[in-house]
Amino acid sequence: MKKRIMLTIAYDGTDYKGWQIQPGESTIEGTVNEAVSRMLEEDIHVIGASRTDAGVHAEGAVAVFDTASPIPADKYSFVINQALPDDIRVLSSKQIPDDFHPRKVPCRKTYEYRIYNGTFHLPTKRLYTHHVYGKLDVEAMNEAGEYFVGEHDFTSFMGAGGQALTTVRTIYDLGVRCENGLTGQGRDREIIISITGNGFLYNMVRIIAGTLIEVGQGRYCPEDVKAMLEAHDRTAAGQTAPACGLCLVKYKYDI
Amino acid sequence: MKKRIMLTIAYDGTDYKGWQIQPGESTIEGTVNEAVSRMLEEDIHVIGASRTDAGVHAEGAVAVFDTASPIPADKYSFVINQALPDDIRVLSSKQIPDDFHPRKVPCRKTYEYRIYNGTFHLPTKRLYTHHVYGKLDVEAMNEAGEYFVGEHDFTSFMGAGGQALTTVRTIYDLGVRCENGLTGQGRDREIIISITGNGFLYNMVRIIAGTLIEVGQGRYCPEDVKAMLEAHDRTAAGQTAPACGLCLVKYKYDI
Repeated sequence: MKKRIMLTIAYDGTDYKGWQIQPGESTIEGTVNEAVSRMLEEDIHVIGASRTDAGVHAEGAVAVFDTASPIPADKYSFVINQALPDDIRVLSSKQIPDDFHPRKVPCRKTYEYRIYNGTFHLPTKRLYTHHVYGKLDVEAMNEAGEYFVGEHDFTSFMGAGGQALTTVRTIYDLGVRCENGLTGQGRDREIIISITGNGFLYNMVRIIAGTLIEVGQGRYCPEDVKAMLEAHDRTAAGQTAPACGLCLVKYKYDI
Repeated sequence: MKKRIMLTIAYDGTDYKGWQIQPGESTIEGTVNEAVSRMLEEDIHVIGASRTDAGVHAEGAVAVFDTASPIPADKYSFVINQALPDDIRVLSSKQIPDDFHPRKVPCRKTYEYRIYNGTFHLPTKRLYTHHVYGKLDVEAMNEAGEYFVGEHDFTSFMGAGGQALTTVRTIYDLGVRCENGLTGQGRDREIIISITGNGFLYNMVRIIAGTLIEVGQGRYCPEDVKAMLEAHDRTAAGQTAPACGLCLVKYKYDI
């Protein structure tokens, strides 16, 4: 009797070409497949809930697989971590219904985009934040963020090469918060954009983050976001922010 | 006319054999010397305020050097960073008195020791925290920390090979704080030991951190620290905690 297991996975994406398996490349999916197959002595291909880009991090990615192994469902994390490199960790595991498919069931996904806003990029933060030198107007960024909340056609915020049956997505929440006093070097701080939605188009979070940064720099007004959304045109929105600042922090399913 | 410049330096110590220059090894001091010499076109050897071990990080290390360069004192950081790898950054620069020696002037130094206390080590925290699986008693750690505050002979907390004219040091402050809710994976949290003193013996902060961890694990009572200090014997104290959790965060001089 096979059972279906769901893994919550965290990774440092720095040294990977993203989630999706690619021949000859180091990927999260490929590395997880190898570790699970080795430890369970079965040929296992996990189904991921999301395909993060090269360099993007995760604290709450999700993948499922079927296994005949008798290991108790909550113990897979301990077993699989034994075969994973230390930049990938299964944080938890549990049994889910046999027909549960992580990309075909409604869910709330939360991403964070972290900006190091200071004169120089702090070395111990450089791998997990995007450095912006000039002081950002966090209030304006928050005001702009509110325009994204709700159901919208996000065509203007989809990267080239994105494929989706529909470009309509719902954002439940978008907040921009600030952590001050990081180094005692005056103005240095970390700015975190937190965004929760029912799904995101290709590069959508990074384009929203890039646009909010440009709002924070005064290049756009918060109200401009409304026109960007209505344009249905990628060139109407801001730049795509770099991958290293992005982290997939949570998947929430109704199971 | 030469002037003396003080640099505040941050680094990710992961890929270095510590501060102190060693032939054939990658060190912070050696890398800073090369960058300063190249950019100022002088043969410069900086004087560091502290020699951190291999793998230890810094957000506020200090080094000084003399130069005949006409660059305004507060602009050296911008110039020198141009020649540094991205895991070392000069955060600020200023002119100081010509006879100022960073190891011969009284100062307050602050170190932080970061512990990732959770089931699995979060990949994006693994380089800058030490992982402890079992739940630590933070209240007991704080209680134990108070015994270190004040002037003491720290012989029991000096690593083998440490050389010092006196083993007496003064700890001004020691606090243990907790950051919860890191991943939503139940009990995961970060515990930060912050310690300020007029100086530290070889490995002293790491032995204090290791001892506090063992107090948090219930292996020692907080009161045991008193007897450890009085023993003047390294074997009376706890283990030396790993380098990766340690960060030199601040130097405070009266200038």
